[in-house]
Amino acid sequence: MRVLGVDPGLTRCGVGVVEGVAGRPLTMRAVGVVRTSADAELGHRLVAIEQGIEHWLDEHRPEFVAVERVFSQDNVRTVMGTAQASAVAMLCASRRGIPVALHTPSEVKAAVTGSGRADKAQVGAMVTRLLRLAAPPRPADAADALALAICHIWRAPAQNRLQQAVQQQAALQASKGRTP
Amino acid sequence: MRVLGVDPGLTRCGVGVVEGVAGRPLTMRAVGVVRTSADAELGHRLVAIEQGIEHWLDEHRPEFVAVERVFSQDNVRTVMGTAQASAVAMLCASRRGIPVALHTPSEVKAAVTGSGRADKAQVGAMVTRLLRLAAPPRPADAADALALAICHIWRAPAQNRLQQAVQQQAALQASKGRTP
Repeated sequence: MRVLGVDPGLTRCGVGVVEGVAGRPLTMRAVGVVRTSADAELGHRLVAIEQGIEHWLDEHRPEFVAVERVFSQDNVRTVMGTAQASAVAMLCASRRGIPVALHTPSEVKAAVTGSGRADKAQVGAMVTRLLRLAAPPRPADAADALALAICHIWRAPAQNRLQQAVQQQAALQASKGRTP
Repeated sequence: MRVLGVDPGLTRCGVGVVEGVAGRPLTMRAVGVVRTSADAELGHRLVAIEQGIEHWLDEHRPEFVAVERVFSQDNVRTVMGTAQASAVAMLCASRRGIPVALHTPSEVKAAVTGSGRADKAQVGAMVTRLLRLAAPPRPADAADALALAICHIWRAPAQNRLQQAVQQQAALQASKGRTP
């Protein structure tokens, strides 16, 4: 399972590709940041982010894209840009038919550190350990993107099992309904 | 001057094309709404908005796209979707090299009604009058998109004159600098 994690942002959009399955050591395929200039017009910044994400999708062919779910109660000054950058990432993936999963920051932190309130350093340290890297990825946005991808790989089986259980239950109900 | 106004939204994205110049009667070329289903996944909704905006750009070839500037202090429940829909509209325009202008809701209201605190009905009434329509465009998002386009046509000359004045001043300063 190959997942592209995207930590959305207008100035720095963290991107990281992780491969593996839950319960086995994971492998980092690539990590980086798509940057746009704060001096550029908003529309041009969004085009630059689109080109950057497209490049990562072309290069790494992920099966899933995991994007941080943005909340409006976050930092009011940056939240609009974050929402706009996340829209571009979701658009690029959905346009190719790649499933997009949204995970909240606390889900991601809880997945990699065990605590939904972990700080950046703790997330960076665990990403480094889980992916057996020599040093924490820099900047923090890059580490967060990897954490998102890890979170998706670990949560996805649970989500799939849940969906299967729901479907089995529905099938059972349907068969009961048919029994006289 | 042909302007596509976009009132961004995930469920209803108002779109309207207005043609004309400041100081002359304006003409509505088209008005409508790009809709997406609230049941669809967010990524797919953004793809549907992209396809809708692309269709309007293909069909009407505007020289400018005017998009409502989204503020994070607006309704917290809808502001993220509005920001994401506006990102798609800006992306589509900028990708084609069409200049994008952002106008705040109060700038738009002030432009068409004279008051930045006008209500929806007042904006709808003035759009109807200014474009010599038989009835106010429905839904309100469609009327707001036309108001954005009108606002851009009326504000643009002032912005252009300001830019020209700045450039002339800069040229004057440069020529003075060269004079011994």
